[in-house]
Amino acid sequence: MKVGILGATGYAGQEIVRLLHRHGEVEKLYLGSSSAAGEDYESIYPHWQDQKVGILQDETIPELDVLFCALPHGLTAQRTSAFLKQNIKVIDLGADFRLNSADLYEEWYKIKHPAAELLKDAVYGLPEIYRDQIKGKSLIANPGCYPTATLLALVPLLRKQLLQTSFLVIDAKSGVSGAGRGVSLGMHYSEVNENFKAYGVASHRHTPEIEQELSRASGQNLTVNFTPHLVPMTRGMLVTIYGKVSEGVQEDDLRECWQAQYEEEEFVHLLPPGTWPQTKFSSGSNHAFLQLTLDKRTGNVVIVSVIDNLMKGAAGQAVQNMNIIMGWQESLGLKGTAMWP
Amino acid sequence: MKVGILGATGYAGQEIVRLLHRHGEVEKLYLGSSSAAGEDYESIYPHWQDQKVGILQDETIPELDVLFCALPHGLTAQRTSAFLKQNIKVIDLGADFRLNSADLYEEWYKIKHPAAELLKDAVYGLPEIYRDQIKGKSLIANPGCYPTATLLALVPLLRKQLLQTSFLVIDAKSGVSGAGRGVSLGMHYSEVNENFKAYGVASHRHTPEIEQELSRASGQNLTVNFTPHLVPMTRGMLVTIYGKVSEGVQEDDLRECWQAQYEEEEFVHLLPPGTWPQTKFSSGSNHAFLQLTLDKRTGNVVIVSVIDNLMKGAAGQAVQNMNIIMGWQESLGLKGTAMWP
Amino acid sequence: MKVGILGATGYAGQEIVRLLHRHGEVEKLYLGSSSAAGEDYESIYPHWQDQKVGILQDETIPELDVLFCALPHGLTAQRTSAFLKQNIKVIDLGADFRLNSADLYEEWYKIKHPAAELLKDAVYGLPEIYRDQIKGKSLIANPGCYPTATLLALVPLLRKQLLQTSFLVIDAKSGVSGAGRGVSLGMHYSEVNENFKAYGVASHRHTPEIEQELSRASGQNLTVNFTPHLVPMTRGMLVTIYGKVSEGVQEDDLRECWQAQYEEEEFVHLLPPGTWPQTKFSSGSNHAFLQLTLDKRTGNVVIVSVIDNLMKGAAGQAVQNMNIIMGWQESLGLKGTAMWP
Amino acid sequence: MKVGILGATGYAGQEIVRLLHRHGEVEKLYLGSSSAAGEDYESIYPHWQDQKVGILQDETIPELDVLFCALPHGLTAQRTSAFLKQNIKVIDLGADFRLNSADLYEEWYKIKHPAAELLKDAVYGLPEIYRDQIKGKSLIANPGCYPTATLLALVPLLRKQLLQTSFLVIDAKSGVSGAGRGVSLGMHYSEVNENFKAYGVASHRHTPEIEQELSRASGQNLTVNFTPHLVPMTRGMLVTIYGKVSEGVQEDDLRECWQAQYEEEEFVHLLPPGTWPQTKFSSGSNHAFLQLTLDKRTGNVVIVSVIDNLMKGAAGQAVQNMNIIMGWQESLGLKGTAMWP
Repeated sequence: MKVGILGATGYAGQEIVRLLHRHGEVEKLYLGSSSAAGEDYESIYPHWQDQKVGILQDETIPELDVLFCALPHGLTAQRTSAFLKQNIKVIDLGADFRLNSADLYEEWYKIKHPAAELLKDAVYGLPEIYRDQIKGKSLIANPGCYPTATLLALVPLLRKQLLQTSFLVIDAKSGVSGAGRGVSLGMHYSEVNENFKAYGVASHRHTPEIEQELSRASGQNLTVNFTPHLVPMTRGMLVTIYGKVSEGVQEDDLRECWQAQYEEEEFVHLLPPGTWPQTKFSSGSNHAFLQLTLDKRTGNVVIVSVIDNLMKGAAGQAVQNMNIIMGWQESLGLKGTAMWP
Repeated sequence: MKVGILGATGYAGQEIVRLLHRHGEVEKLYLGSSSAAGEDYESIYPHWQDQKVGILQDETIPELDVLFCALPHGLTAQRTSAFLKQNIKVIDLGADFRLNSADLYEEWYKIKHPAAELLKDAVYGLPEIYRDQIKGKSLIANPGCYPTATLLALVPLLRKQLLQTSFLVIDAKSGVSGAGRGVSLGMHYSEVNENFKAYGVASHRHTPEIEQELSRASGQNLTVNFTPHLVPMTRGMLVTIYGKVSEGVQEDDLRECWQAQYEEEEFVHLLPPGTWPQTKFSSGSNHAFLQLTLDKRTGNVVIVSVIDNLMKGAAGQAVQNMNIIMGWQESLGLKGTAMWP
Repeated sequence: MKVGILGATGYAGQEIVRLLHRHGEVEKLYLGSSSAAGEDYESIYPHWQDQKVGILQDETIPELDVLFCALPHGLTAQRTSAFLKQNIKVIDLGADFRLNSADLYEEWYKIKHPAAELLKDAVYGLPEIYRDQIKGKSLIANPGCYPTATLLALVPLLRKQLLQTSFLVIDAKSGVSGAGRGVSLGMHYSEVNENFKAYGVASHRHTPEIEQELSRASGQNLTVNFTPHLVPMTRGMLVTIYGKVSEGVQEDDLRECWQAQYEEEEFVHLLPPGTWPQTKFSSGSNHAFLQLTLDKRTGNVVIVSVIDNLMKGAAGQAVQNMNIIMGWQESLGLKGTAMWP
Repeated sequence: MKVGILGATGYAGQEIVRLLHRHGEVEKLYLGSSSAAGEDYESIYPHWQDQKVGILQDETIPELDVLFCALPHGLTAQRTSAFLKQNIKVIDLGADFRLNSADLYEEWYKIKHPAAELLKDAVYGLPEIYRDQIKGKSLIANPGCYPTATLLALVPLLRKQLLQTSFLVIDAKSGVSGAGRGVSLGMHYSEVNENFKAYGVASHRHTPEIEQELSRASGQNLTVNFTPHLVPMTRGMLVTIYGKVSEGVQEDDLRECWQAQYEEEEFVHLLPPGTWPQTKFSSGSNHAFLQLTLDKRTGNVVIVSVIDNLMKGAAGQAVQNMNIIMGWQESLGLKGTAMWP
């Protein structure tokens, strides 16, 4: 099995390297990098010293079985058609194939979609929701981190019409690694540390992705209030969701819906009532944790969903998708709980 | 002027010491401590070395002009009547006099109110909202940190009926110092660091305080969804609020309402459109920062309000209240912007 | 294979659980806890939800092949003789068997050694230095975290007489998790965060352990200046060492000595000249990283050594020791590089 | 009084703005910025909202009494002669006038000194050591942060010949803000957080500055081992020093020497024996804290010195120097203890 990574020196790319290193089925690793071709991986990331990860290559793609694309939006779509012709299965960690509509893509990403004709062939790679559609596919749109945490919580409830669609507030909080390895004042240590802020208020690009999938689940077009915040920590993502239950729905109905959806799932966990998820429960692992309560005073449900933004929110889910499309055990390379403390 | 502090070794107590140290009108400081009476303040807090803060006293109150009570709920109310008889003005940083109703207090704090007869004499000490009522009073209920951040944002808008009362979500985030100096596993460094969590979901004691004041502002009984979260940082508080505007209300109407309320205020700042508050803007200062946007897609307003939980959320506001009841310049001892970075 | 852990809810105990979970040779796990017997492991550590780790047991030891003791000093030694009679191999993560001299133990730990007669049977479990002595032994004294980082750097150099023994400064820095899960003001988040301090200056209990092993390596009794510091981070340990080289010794001599010692080692890495170790290089892994330079202006060598205090400094090394005494592949359950970022 | 700042948007520059804002003697503030001229200060630093700090100016210097230069090395020296001709007193927070020797400057800073002829007129602005020389001077070289923490501890002891000059190890640790506001991968949040590292080993530019001043104090040329480390926190600096006492010197001799030097000083504090300084003791304040012990086993002294790197290590000391040269009370604008927690 030959596997490649485009953007191998970014945080998601490096996390994929870490996962494939213990995977078992991957024999050869192609590491593509536009910025560091020719350099030894260990010179970029010295913690890989003596592990013989390999030399970074330019972005000429060799023969491969699977290619992970961890690139800024637009760059993957330009080349996807060529990859597919080379008979390479493509797992895109970027945004190019997440939205079904090229118009919506253009509206939010401010560029014309470079490969609109491929959108119909792409499948949204959220395994716990779309596992059957993923199997055997060649083009996987790996979900965004915020959508992953949100959809795991809401899709089952909306599919069963347990929530009203007119009222959904998604207040999300992410560790800083989600912003990647590119330097900027907004990610400068002294500006982020001991600080907490909202960003992208009413304008974050994960909004249409969340709405698309929630609309699909509920069967009607809906909009959400989605506000991401930056937490002074490196890893982790927590989403707090507020919704209005459908008439007559009790807390147990919601809990049982989740239970039915996830009882066979290896990576999604419902915590016992009263135990609320913390981001550290997921740190370094592919596990997601869920909890909810029905606030008796307002009648609204409060949901908390937690993942590791680089794992279930990016690299871990990408490897999970690879395992599915290749027909391997879904948790290959992904076993293990969080690092604690 | 003789000023006392009960609970002088807690974080709020120590912050009051810091503020009074540079205040100018305070000549004598009584430092009460049930746990450390007899010890030199510098032995508890060595960063006060050579500053001659004084020896901690037992809780026998001497003759004083003003007494700050920074004690767990219940303890202040037991003794307030005696303090008032001594002709001491009392500023309670605890929860004993914030709720107008002794029944509501008992419901949320699980003890019978020790001095229900005094509730009618207490004034809720949020200066920018109730300044005129505070002047000359002898018993001030210093607001909770979460209510302060929330009410500064919402009270003006609800008073003007710019928001609907049926839909208010308050998603709040606080630094760890708000939990005080008492040790517990939940505040143990290795459990909190690189971690983010919700707590007190649908059950936090600041909920009835927020609802009381918002109901008063709007003229109708309302309930809110209030969810506090713990941020891995020491200081700072950010509240994200979601609401539905009344029919026909535009973003400018909301902004102008704030503008009218706060243009003369020294400690409350509206940021220019598009500049969102960060907790660090307030760090170590008594300043609050506000921002909002009307999300065109959902029609809901998103509001962010930021304070330093130990300053405007506790000690700073308490000193501001003292300045008001004593008739001094309101910002005495409170000038200065945040420490950055 | 049946393996037990005493102190299974402490940080080192939990880390052993994490490692054994992916180990492959361990079939049954006994989890002993004096404080939480009868509780499900998942109720203590909810991130283990659905992993079926097991119920915590009281400290009555069943039949076992290997027992890890992660207890405060004194408690293990009291019972070791009984464990050995049960034919259980004991790996003590505490301090009871690290010092060869019961007198020295009493001097530094302030209690009489509970099992001085066993000291001669215990082997100091630093595999890269004492692998041959560890094989087949029944009582392993797992080294302290500071000694591990220090000895990996210094033992080879002192064995070859490349350093003078009269001048050794060990300035050490540790993440907070090294202090364990017991709450105290010194580990209270708000007191540790954004703070850095020395502690145990000229009095830390790892001092005699370091001196014993360095004396053994150099063949003469030596003393060191050892100063630990607390870094506001959860995991990681970095030791900066200052020494005087023996006459005529060049930087290359030092480097070659390390090279010869460690070129076959899976867990100890010499970085290329100029690349200095960072604690994050080791985070979550069993790898150690070394670097040095000969400061031309002073003629002294400056050495930096890095480990993860809970892995190579505790649980990882304990599992490595188990693998050696059981004759398994030494890296079983320990593969994998640091989590980055 | 008209005061100017060149580099007003850097961290040191902004800290000077914060201090002057509460200073009392400063009427007009000129804010120079090469990168942001024409912008309102509040647009760069929104936490100054409504404070009317002013518009950033280009670097054409108007008539001023005092000018703080917080610029990269080389840039200040080019223009100093012109400033002095304008009759402006110059306080340079950079490195241009700290070393007495232009050759040494060239060796370490890799550029020819732009104004070597002024070196003889500059005074090294460490008030507690050189107060008399500072008074009335026009060109002050504000010391580096590491030298400040180191020299406060060592100069008195070396002047009295209490320490040997052949053995001095200075192991220093700094918060990240010392690196300034310029973005780089080394200051990128996700690379720094939960990480600790040495940097500039045996090559940091503060080395010759420290050696110059210690040589001056001891009366003989000496060299030191100086190793800086980066702590994952924003503010604070701690220096651990190891030295050999001169024959017969006892711990009390060292302590008394400090006592004699600092008993009248407002900003330097000796802690009681056994209380070790923490960086947070200084946070946001101009105070320094000292402690030492004589390690009986090795005979070496271990010293810890703590400052806030942006205050006593930069902006605070600069304002202290201004107060001295202008003949004002030395602590004007600098009163106040650390922010805790």
